[in-house]
Amino acid sequence: MEDILKKINAFREERDWRQFHNPKDLSISISLEAAELLENFQWKTSEEALSGDMENVKEEIADVLIYSLMLASDLDLDVREIIEEKLRKNSVKYPVSRSKGSNKKYTDL
Amino acid sequence: MEDILKKINAFREERDWRQFHNPKDLSISISLEAAELLENFQWKTSEEALSGDMENVKEEIADVLIYSLMLASDLDLDVREIIEEKLRKNSVKYPVSRSKGSNKKYTDL
Amino acid sequence: MEDILKKINAFREERDWRQFHNPKDLSISISLEAAELLENFQWKTSEEALSGDMENVKEEIADVLIYSLMLASDLDLDVREIIEEKLRKNSVKYPVSRSKGSNKKYTDL
Amino acid sequence: MEDILKKINAFREERDWRQFHNPKDLSISISLEAAELLENFQWKTSEEALSGDMENVKEEIADVLIYSLMLASDLDLDVREIIEEKLRKNSVKYPVSRSKGSNKKYTDL
Repeated sequence: MEDILKKINAFREERDWRQFHNPKDLSISISLEAAELLENFQWKTSEEALSGDMENVKEEIADVLIYSLMLASDLDLDVREIIEEKLRKNSVKYPVSRSKGSNKKYTDL
Repeated sequence: MEDILKKINAFREERDWRQFHNPKDLSISISLEAAELLENFQWKTSEEALSGDMENVKEEIADVLIYSLMLASDLDLDVREIIEEKLRKNSVKYPVSRSKGSNKKYTDL
Repeated sequence: MEDILKKINAFREERDWRQFHNPKDLSISISLEAAELLENFQWKTSEEALSGDMENVKEEIADVLIYSLMLASDLDLDVREIIEEKLRKNSVKYPVSRSKGSNKKYTDL
Repeated sequence: MEDILKKINAFREERDWRQFHNPKDLSISISLEAAELLENFQWKTSEEALSGDMENVKEEIADVLIYSLMLASDLDLDVREIIEEKLRKNSVKYPVSRSKGSNKKYTDL
């Protein structure tokens, strides 16, 4: 993870883009890239979408990840740590015994 | 990365959630978590937001990452690979000479 | 339309909220409400979602409309006019002869 | 409102698009158009954005409204009614006395 983060940060530093990369606009950017990913599935089933432009699907997932890693980096967050912490919290919100096989939100379990 | 992905996949397998995790709904989920992250910045500057609920900011970045890693995993995509490939493509779209210090989209450069 | 817009504007003026309602944050708000609407459909078919919390579906559509009408009002746009103009443009992008029965984007027609 | 809704519905009926317009995909579409609107504000202040492509801003607001009106129509919702009902609910969540001049969420008031 550290080496990929280094490449991502080098990319924006070479372009002097840090000045634009405040956390609010990075969060906007994550939303925009997530929408571009989702556009591949508009009016389609998953299967129809994946038999379409897989190259674009890949690129948009990468964009979501790139901006998320930038934001985490700017806020001095360790990606592995926050993921593990969130999984722990989710384990409490969604105990296996009550959530197994259910698509309900924890507030409805 | 591999070990964190293993934990993420173990989490959903224990709950028998793979049945809901088709790529379309995972893409929807990435969008929803991106919006929950962005909500922290609504009506606020970045500074105001970050002096607010940093715990929630952390959790929402983690959620975006978790769903993105799930989707990449389900599509058999190597996260490092797609990020590096996207950075290469962006280097072509945004050559340093023309994009340095600019917030313009590549179509306007 | 004019009378409903008056009610919407009265609502925010009574609360002295115009100071927060810059176009960027209104656009963010439209995105957030759209995501809250979409959350009703996460992991579900349309049918499953609509047999769920229809009260929330209604409220979120209303919220998307309220923020969109606020933004249009702040930019001095006539809602009817911009919708009719957009329909005209879409007629050119999607001529009936080529788009009938197709879920393709105009760039792929 | 009724006449503009008639035009919108005529547009999709001529193209035989009702078959794609299930509520889930319409909700996805509202999110996508909201993101395209928001893209105008990425890395920019409101002022910078509005001195940019106002034509696109207009079109994206129109798109959000068009899909929202389609969805309301398909669910047999009266747009004026759901907006007025939501304003009434918001009045309770945000009483003038407590929310005046505040950008806090009702849960934090």
